[in-house]
Amino acid sequence: MDPYQQLRQRFHKLSRLRHALTFLQWDQMVMMPTGGNEPRSEAIAELTAMHHEILTARETGELLEKCAEQTTEPALLQSIVEMQRKYLYGAALPSKLVKAKSIAGSKCEHGWREQRKNNDWPGFLKNFQEVVGLAREEAQARFESRPGKFSTPYDAMLDLYCTGDSSNFISNIFATLKKELPNLVQQIVEKQRTRSLPTLRGHYPIERQQRLCRELMVCLGFDFSCGRIDVSAHPFSTGCRGDHRITTRFRETDFIEALLATAHETGHASYESGLPKEWDKLPVGQARNMCIHESQSLLFEKQLFLSRPFISFFTKKIHQLLPTTEQFDDAALWAAATRVQPSFIRVEADEVTYPLHIILRYEIESGLINNTVAAEDIPELWDGKMKKYLNLSTAGDYRDGCLQDIHWTDGSFGYFPSYTIGALNSAQLFSAIVKNFPDWQQRLACGDIVFVRKWLTEAIWSKGSTMDSQDIICDATGTETDPGFFLRHIRNRYLEESC
Amino acid sequence: MDPYQQLRQRFHKLSRLRHALTFLQWDQMVMMPTGGNEPRSEAIAELTAMHHEILTARETGELLEKCAEQTTEPALLQSIVEMQRKYLYGAALPSKLVKAKSIAGSKCEHGWREQRKNNDWPGFLKNFQEVVGLAREEAQARFESRPGKFSTPYDAMLDLYCTGDSSNFISNIFATLKKELPNLVQQIVEKQRTRSLPTLRGHYPIERQQRLCRELMVCLGFDFSCGRIDVSAHPFSTGCRGDHRITTRFRETDFIEALLATAHETGHASYESGLPKEWDKLPVGQARNMCIHESQSLLFEKQLFLSRPFISFFTKKIHQLLPTTEQFDDAALWAAATRVQPSFIRVEADEVTYPLHIILRYEIESGLINNTVAAEDIPELWDGKMKKYLNLSTAGDYRDGCLQDIHWTDGSFGYFPSYTIGALNSAQLFSAIVKNFPDWQQRLACGDIVFVRKWLTEAIWSKGSTMDSQDIICDATGTETDPGFFLRHIRNRYLEESC
Repeated sequence: MDPYQQLRQRFHKLSRLRHALTFLQWDQMVMMPTGGNEPRSEAIAELTAMHHEILTARETGELLEKCAEQTTEPALLQSIVEMQRKYLYGAALPSKLVKAKSIAGSKCEHGWREQRKNNDWPGFLKNFQEVVGLAREEAQARFESRPGKFSTPYDAMLDLYCTGDSSNFISNIFATLKKELPNLVQQIVEKQRTRSLPTLRGHYPIERQQRLCRELMVCLGFDFSCGRIDVSAHPFSTGCRGDHRITTRFRETDFIEALLATAHETGHASYESGLPKEWDKLPVGQARNMCIHESQSLLFEKQLFLSRPFISFFTKKIHQLLPTTEQFDDAALWAAATRVQPSFIRVEADEVTYPLHIILRYEIESGLINNTVAAEDIPELWDGKMKKYLNLSTAGDYRDGCLQDIHWTDGSFGYFPSYTIGALNSAQLFSAIVKNFPDWQQRLACGDIVFVRKWLTEAIWSKGSTMDSQDIICDATGTETDPGFFLRHIRNRYLEESC
Repeated sequence: MDPYQQLRQRFHKLSRLRHALTFLQWDQMVMMPTGGNEPRSEAIAELTAMHHEILTARETGELLEKCAEQTTEPALLQSIVEMQRKYLYGAALPSKLVKAKSIAGSKCEHGWREQRKNNDWPGFLKNFQEVVGLAREEAQARFESRPGKFSTPYDAMLDLYCTGDSSNFISNIFATLKKELPNLVQQIVEKQRTRSLPTLRGHYPIERQQRLCRELMVCLGFDFSCGRIDVSAHPFSTGCRGDHRITTRFRETDFIEALLATAHETGHASYESGLPKEWDKLPVGQARNMCIHESQSLLFEKQLFLSRPFISFFTKKIHQLLPTTEQFDDAALWAAATRVQPSFIRVEADEVTYPLHIILRYEIESGLINNTVAAEDIPELWDGKMKKYLNLSTAGDYRDGCLQDIHWTDGSFGYFPSYTIGALNSAQLFSAIVKNFPDWQQRLACGDIVFVRKWLTEAIWSKGSTMDSQDIICDATGTETDPGFFLRHIRNRYLEESC
């Protein structure tokens, strides 16, 4: 067997191990009774260790070297580059560090649940210092594993989630948003003050909401012979080709939240379902990075579902399944669902203020990892930035300030920016769709989204990781990620209230 | 690390791989959309191969030899014996045979689904010949892997399911049943003809039946923080310590069937939940064999749930959740649920005729594997035995004759006898409980089954595989498996109608 075929087999095997991990983790979040936690955690740790061992084995490295030398076919070369990337991600960290990280992360996350409730920053800080210390070690090791590739240790972390988009690139973009958004937020809040916003609070039976969410998924093109929707504490999306699983959550008093989460996760699942079949089970066939992934979920949630024409189409279904909503017409529903309001909590933020929450975290975490910010200075920095960006004070309120997110507790530094780069990408991609389909509003108003899925399949989904992130965006829209599209979208929707 | 510790680690690792397989297979039967079938089958095959590789590696064999030489502690020796058994099960078959078996089995099973519908014996026979040929090879390989241990190749197959109970032992027991049962069946049918049997057919909403099944499980001591119940095409039980999963199925026209299946699977799950914690994740800590496993499920289903006092207790709950059943008192429900009637289909048979279905299969499959019966002779043999044992003719009716079961299509020869040895064990164990607790009827009539679970925990569950099958039964009841207990139970319940 030639070395590439051997590598292929090895990565197929890794993919099957990840298949097992994927569904064991899904089950843990969605189905498993509490008594199953210990054996499940043990099994997941065992399979993770086996995965790491096969990925970083000496043979993998040797085969990669041989292949890189012998291969000239560009498509195969790209496949090898992406294998190499995964191999280096794995091989960069000594297993002692991986283990120490996992233990410190679990401890910090476990403590955080109570500490957040009790507004206990000093208690949290003790565990968190250790997490930060290990994350700095991790960043340094990743930085050194690819000499000349990253300009800072934080960039090496960023590469795990925003693969291809450097901190230099992101900082430039965020600078524009920082300049424009605070002012825009003020204008929009002013403007919205003049319109009457209906409150949608009511009693919406969960079983009805479940049916409504399934209807929405069908409208958005989800194929239930290749997936499911279930309930979990936090909505997420996972699975594999042919078996895409999303979750949402329900509140009896509100139905918009579950619909937004369902549209969002359907976007993630759609991307996964459209990845190139010819590269199945290989790194080059996987999703490009989280900036693209999040662009697809946000495109489904904010650009498609929250558009005026789609809401006007879907209102009929809402009325049907939740008859008490009949008092609200589509304009009222749209107005209620697009309310803008600076607030403390990121996950509850509207799309206009959301990037400011992200920029704040980006600035702090990059400093933390590059050793220019100390963990104990976070609350003060947080408060200063919240005042500056959103005109809100969090002094002394850690619970709704720097203790609100789970991402830092387990050391996932570098993840946050992908939310906002994803939002910008989604606006940019949707503007290309709008340009390509001048009748897009009529189509959406009839519930036709096939043209969107088809366009995304070609432009994004079928690309997998065969191209770099910015090349994909550039090919699809004519330019690299540019905050102008997002800012125009925000002005259009919230100042001109056009769509 | 001493060699036993190394073995222990190795078997823990194997146990964690089986954990993954267990829940991937559960998901496949209960949750997975059809689109997931291909990647799931691939992942299961990969993990199965990894399991086989680690189990049968040269190091495993060497460590086992070292341990067997160095160990004197009886408990550890028994642990090693059971590890050795698993190792030999794995090592006995060349992987080429394992693969050929799997392919032939899948093909035969796949074809069977249509062939059964079409009463197409010749079509089935073509695939089945191959399955039988490979099964004979398997039996021969297993027979030769342990020289002097088995008296026939069929005994080597039997050892997989009825571990410790030989064909000689089983044939003796079945001879008694063959002598007694046909006559007993006739007497019971005669007797039941004189009583009025209510028909329970009606409309019973599935959601209500689901609640009723959950209530039954709680009554039988199932802990929902350590398990679940779901729906599948065929009821089954699986899981691990702390996470026991059973399934049942529902028909809107009948509620007894789902309750019986639920009680049955709760018995299986209860046995698993009571296995010795100190031997967790090791072969010696696993269920002894299928004859014991089936004795626990049948004890819960036939001895506990179907007893007059328990039915009288549970009738209140049935009335509560299915108000249309209020026309039937507990005596009527009991009479309807204990109806005896010779019939063609094993899985629908009552407990009196059931063993005759098994004996027929046992006699044919042992001949098949030992090469004294040819596959093409099965229909004639089947018809002859059905006439002799149950006075029913299946001439020309393969669908409800020799094509009804799935067990032979994938080569699981040696499994069938465990159903009936299990039934005998359950009657024998319950008679020991009756002797130990003279007030058992009053207790069951109040819904108290704690004493049964406690007794079974000590006598059966906590034993795991630390003793041989017949030693467990002997210690618990004073004698090896003896059909007299079962026959007395049948006479008591069906001729004297006492409990």
